[in-house]
Amino acid sequence: MSTASTLESTFSAETYFATQPPPVSLDQDILGVREFVQRHARTGRKVVLVTSGGTTVPLELNVVRFLDNFSAGTRGATSAEYFLKAGYAVIFMHRQFSLQPFSRHYSHSTHPFLDFLEVEQGTIGTSGSEGAYISVKPSERTQLLEVLAAYKTVQKAGTLHTLNFVTVNDYLWLLRAISQELSVLGRDAMYYLAAAVSDFFLPRQKLSEHKIQSGKGSLHIEMDQVPKILKPLVSDWTRGEGFIVSFKLETDSSLLVPKACAALARYGHQVVIGNDLHTRKHQVIFVSPSPKTSSSLQGNSDEQHFEQVWLRIDPADKNKEIEEDIVAELVVRHRAWAGLRSMT
Amino acid sequence: MSTASTLESTFSAETYFATQPPPVSLDQDILGVREFVQRHARTGRKVVLVTSGGTTVPLELNVVRFLDNFSAGTRGATSAEYFLKAGYAVIFMHRQFSLQPFSRHYSHSTHPFLDFLEVEQGTIGTSGSEGAYISVKPSERTQLLEVLAAYKTVQKAGTLHTLNFVTVNDYLWLLRAISQELSVLGRDAMYYLAAAVSDFFLPRQKLSEHKIQSGKGSLHIEMDQVPKILKPLVSDWTRGEGFIVSFKLETDSSLLVPKACAALARYGHQVVIGNDLHTRKHQVIFVSPSPKTSSSLQGNSDEQHFEQVWLRIDPADKNKEIEEDIVAELVVRHRAWAGLRSMT
Repeated sequence: MSTASTLESTFSAETYFATQPPPVSLDQDILGVREFVQRHARTGRKVVLVTSGGTTVPLELNVVRFLDNFSAGTRGATSAEYFLKAGYAVIFMHRQFSLQPFSRHYSHSTHPFLDFLEVEQGTIGTSGSEGAYISVKPSERTQLLEVLAAYKTVQKAGTLHTLNFVTVNDYLWLLRAISQELSVLGRDAMYYLAAAVSDFFLPRQKLSEHKIQSGKGSLHIEMDQVPKILKPLVSDWTRGEGFIVSFKLETDSSLLVPKACAALARYGHQVVIGNDLHTRKHQVIFVSPSPKTSSSLQGNSDEQHFEQVWLRIDPADKNKEIEEDIVAELVVRHRAWAGLRSMT
Repeated sequence: MSTASTLESTFSAETYFATQPPPVSLDQDILGVREFVQRHARTGRKVVLVTSGGTTVPLELNVVRFLDNFSAGTRGATSAEYFLKAGYAVIFMHRQFSLQPFSRHYSHSTHPFLDFLEVEQGTIGTSGSEGAYISVKPSERTQLLEVLAAYKTVQKAGTLHTLNFVTVNDYLWLLRAISQELSVLGRDAMYYLAAAVSDFFLPRQKLSEHKIQSGKGSLHIEMDQVPKILKPLVSDWTRGEGFIVSFKLETDSSLLVPKACAALARYGHQVVIGNDLHTRKHQVIFVSPSPKTSSSLQGNSDEQHFEQVWLRIDPADKNKEIEEDIVAELVVRHRAWAGLRSMT
């Protein structure tokens, strides 16, 4: 495998959207988001877009094989729960079948709900009738009651709107459309981009129609670069007003800070959260423009211009999730960002 | 993207296992399977290995990106349930987080269990104490009681053994080890190979250690062919005695029968089940050696030597799953195959 330097395959965001077809459900999805945003705009509730899970790059039109980015969706699903708890309305845009808020506590693989349900004989509820009924094992009742209560509260309040994507193309079209809808909220909107997005894609024009046949030797795949969409997201789609949080995941920790600074300098957004694949559940670094120098920052990735704050939790504490602290920190920073509105 | 003809990258099964490292949990997994097989061998129960879900091909050692094969695991998980119902012991070897028997009815995306649980106040079960308790919505009770009862029966009987894989390398090592364990059952063992296995892989020796960096133009990936393991599975690992069912998935239907016949001629096993990506939930074709000509079949893929039987169900009937008919047909054929033992 090799990574070669060719320029022929560079798509700008503009070229991308002009040449790649939108997902069929896009118009329907936009209507749902618009209704959700307008409803919360009326009450002054802040809204956060949480993206979550990995995107795919199909190798065939009738897709059998695809490139994927590793992500169960834990960061996004967990953070969404804490944003809801903090009073935000949440647009949860996630990879189909990745983890979701609330149900994430009951993975079919690691904590299957069928294991803690029991069939019993007796009086059913308050009905007074006799028969087989289903009960929850005593050891699981407290947690399930808590999760269920939070879930029902959110459903009743209508503060969670869920959409899903599969391919990187779905993701890009949805992100653009949702951020344009959300931009009516100005500084009250946050963008929490936790999805693991492919850096490469196969333009529709290069896709095989049918399953690639084996038996003819090795497989060669050549992919084009996905356009850098943070730039238009910051400058155009959200008109420079959204509070935008992006993520950097690396396996080589020494790259985290330099890459985070370079991204902030290039795109001009508010926070990069850096995490290492192996320690991401108990430590992350917040990199953001230093308040003193932020006005003249753009284009300068010198590390001294950026504030670096580590958030760490005790890896041994099974009752603590780092997303609780990440969200608490962001809520404070977002409040400050939104407060600046009245002064400008 | 192009598929080129090169011979340099052809691994035999032997070379593959001599050069690619086994998964770390292999020894532990083998012990579990051995205990399971021996327990059922003592009672004369037939055992089926069901493989299910798609395999991945990691592009990096510290894996962020991987190639995947499309499969939710529906075929395998559903079939496993019907095999259990038919009295088989089932080794369910599936892709981590893909669908599993029983819990498959409650996908977090399409049928989330939190949606049909309710929090109520009243007398809790037979305890006589008062408080908040969890109840199941009346409309869901019948199905959940049925699924739960079947699940508890299987747990009590100890007839389901579950293991999981992620990469195609995990899959190959596990398949070899399990089939060698299962071979002690001779003709009483069935192999139901429903997993969607990659035809290509990246040898460990060619893997990047860290996340491939973007920003350097397009991505080139060159993959080697996965060795054809049906040949050693049939001839060596199961000593020609296992009842082996493989699957062909195509998006171009015209390829199904010729490819199924070619596989049977090449590998000498019992059944290929052909399915088209778009119609796989309501029709499949069983291709098998014709009884009249099967003795001199090997190497001859002429379609007249093969029996073709379509199984179809009504796509409008939501209460019928085609796996019920697939398994019923295989149980009959396996009984005939196992019965031949006494005559040889």
